[in-house]
Amino acid sequence: MEANDQIFFGCTLSDTNTCATWDLIKEDDFRCNKLVIKQILLDADAKNDEYNVVEVMSSRDLVKIPIAVLKAGEQRMAIPDLEFYESNVTFSLIRGSGPVHMCGHIVREYVDIMYVSKDGHQTHKYPRLS
Amino acid sequence: MEANDQIFFGCTLSDTNTCATWDLIKEDDFRCNKLVIKQILLDADAKNDEYNVVEVMSSRDLVKIPIAVLKAGEQRMAIPDLEFYESNVTFSLIRGSGPVHMCGHIVREYVDIMYVSKDGHQTHKYPRLS
Amino acid sequence: MEANDQIFFGCTLSDTNTCATWDLIKEDDFRCNKLVIKQILLDADAKNDEYNVVEVMSSRDLVKIPIAVLKAGEQRMAIPDLEFYESNVTFSLIRGSGPVHMCGHIVREYVDIMYVSKDGHQTHKYPRLS
Amino acid sequence: MEANDQIFFGCTLSDTNTCATWDLIKEDDFRCNKLVIKQILLDADAKNDEYNVVEVMSSRDLVKIPIAVLKAGEQRMAIPDLEFYESNVTFSLIRGSGPVHMCGHIVREYVDIMYVSKDGHQTHKYPRLS
Amino acid sequence: MEANDQIFFGCTLSDTNTCATWDLIKEDDFRCNKLVIKQILLDADAKNDEYNVVEVMSSRDLVKIPIAVLKAGEQRMAIPDLEFYESNVTFSLIRGSGPVHMCGHIVREYVDIMYVSKDGHQTHKYPRLS
Repeated sequence: MEANDQIFFGCTLSDTNTCATWDLIKEDDFRCNKLVIKQILLDADAKNDEYNVVEVMSSRDLVKIPIAVLKAGEQRMAIPDLEFYESNVTFSLIRGSGPVHMCGHIVREYVDIMYVSKDGHQTHKYPRLS
Repeated sequence: MEANDQIFFGCTLSDTNTCATWDLIKEDDFRCNKLVIKQILLDADAKNDEYNVVEVMSSRDLVKIPIAVLKAGEQRMAIPDLEFYESNVTFSLIRGSGPVHMCGHIVREYVDIMYVSKDGHQTHKYPRLS
Repeated sequence: MEANDQIFFGCTLSDTNTCATWDLIKEDDFRCNKLVIKQILLDADAKNDEYNVVEVMSSRDLVKIPIAVLKAGEQRMAIPDLEFYESNVTFSLIRGSGPVHMCGHIVREYVDIMYVSKDGHQTHKYPRLS
Repeated sequence: MEANDQIFFGCTLSDTNTCATWDLIKEDDFRCNKLVIKQILLDADAKNDEYNVVEVMSSRDLVKIPIAVLKAGEQRMAIPDLEFYESNVTFSLIRGSGPVHMCGHIVREYVDIMYVSKDGHQTHKYPRLS
Repeated sequence: MEANDQIFFGCTLSDTNTCATWDLIKEDDFRCNKLVIKQILLDADAKNDEYNVVEVMSSRDLVKIPIAVLKAGEQRMAIPDLEFYESNVTFSLIRGSGPVHMCGHIVREYVDIMYVSKDGHQTHKYPRLS
């Protein structure tokens, strides 16, 4: 059995606010945290003919790589659908002045571990409502 | 065990109807409400060379951010696939005159919590058919 | 336990065949019918510089809204991924002469409701194979 | 309980190889076969200003319809995400000389039917490991 | 019951690093490894008017096929959402000098096989926490 929680997140990167960080390191043994990037959108006021590049750095995955290259008149948005799982994640606008709007979800999942003992009784790691 | 219900929703934002609000605050302990935005589409009659910007404000998530930048001849539609979960959500056309057509789903999920008592009997929070 | 069935559907709208209707009203208490629109595609023989607009009308959801605006040379296809659930749904080509090809899936889901009686016996709404 | 298997498939249609067929007719009562088309991609060597049209014909679904219209410089790829379920499916390049690269997945799903007899013993249609 | 693990992966192909290989051959009977390619992105510094073609070769699936054709000013990114399951997979930049950034997920799934013996005791292939 699972119980999930999900929040919408959004953040804006620009030349005055080039970075955003999320800490998704799991907090106990049975909780998992996941960040899902659904859309990266260049603002209507972005400069013409300027590339805007968003890079991600994920500590657990040892990765640092561009995930969006946007330019007014050529590519207005990206829909990468990328997931970062139990990591510390930083998004940086490494080129261009934006604004670039990122949005997606943070999902917290509580996994209930059920044990079946030899006499058939069930016990649960998480407290059950009664 | 789960029982879900899903409805299709659509709404049109324009200069005479710039806002639309959905209340997804959960109504009791075991019901969750979710709004999914699948597509934001600029109408065939939208003005040329005008940016149309749709912004979302979500009370529970403390977020206010653009989710679509559309312009005839450049970007006709967005498919953000964004979810808003148990919140009060307002979409506003903050720039341009539209019309902009939004559509997606509202999902209601009924989670049946099953209790296993010490003598092995199962009881359920929700009434069972018999 | 669930048993699903899924069929692929496709239909073509044009100036000689402007409408298509699907009846997804559920037929008994435990069957749900869902129509999923995956792609709306403008034909290679569509006229240049003509907008083609597909509108959906869904009886259960009380909605009538455009879901695709296509034009040769500007926007060849849409991938809305929209679902219509237990409704009567009509798609109409309200502008342009097409042809416009729609495709997706119709999913029928049979949900087996399991009852647990007080003496622990399980009975099922749907007949089980034996 | 389910056990799945999935393979990646890819095929190339061109003027010398205009058709590809997959037989997904289910082979026994409890096995389902599904073909998922994720991407249809026009080759870098495709001719300029030539439409390339891929049509699908599915025997079980009684459907014959275009699923991609591609043209160098206008529309390089489609991502239809279409599923064909327990059918005989043929993809044909009905216009243009390609090459057009199709790829996706073939999913085989083994559904284990569990019976619960009146004395509470479980038996399974599929052999269990022991 | 399932326990999953997922990592984000990213790699960059260019004229000095044209290949990347992942070994997803399953390591024991009950573990499955899957690589999911979510996005293939042409760098902001890619040359104008040069096609960049990424090809995949998958040993288990006996497939070798292009999965992305990118060109600055025409097609900046692909979102193929392709999965490679328990195979040895090589991505190669077979045309163009890139850089091309690939990213997605590697999913490891541990399937717990539960046996029900004739006296009703359950045993598990994987060790259970106690």
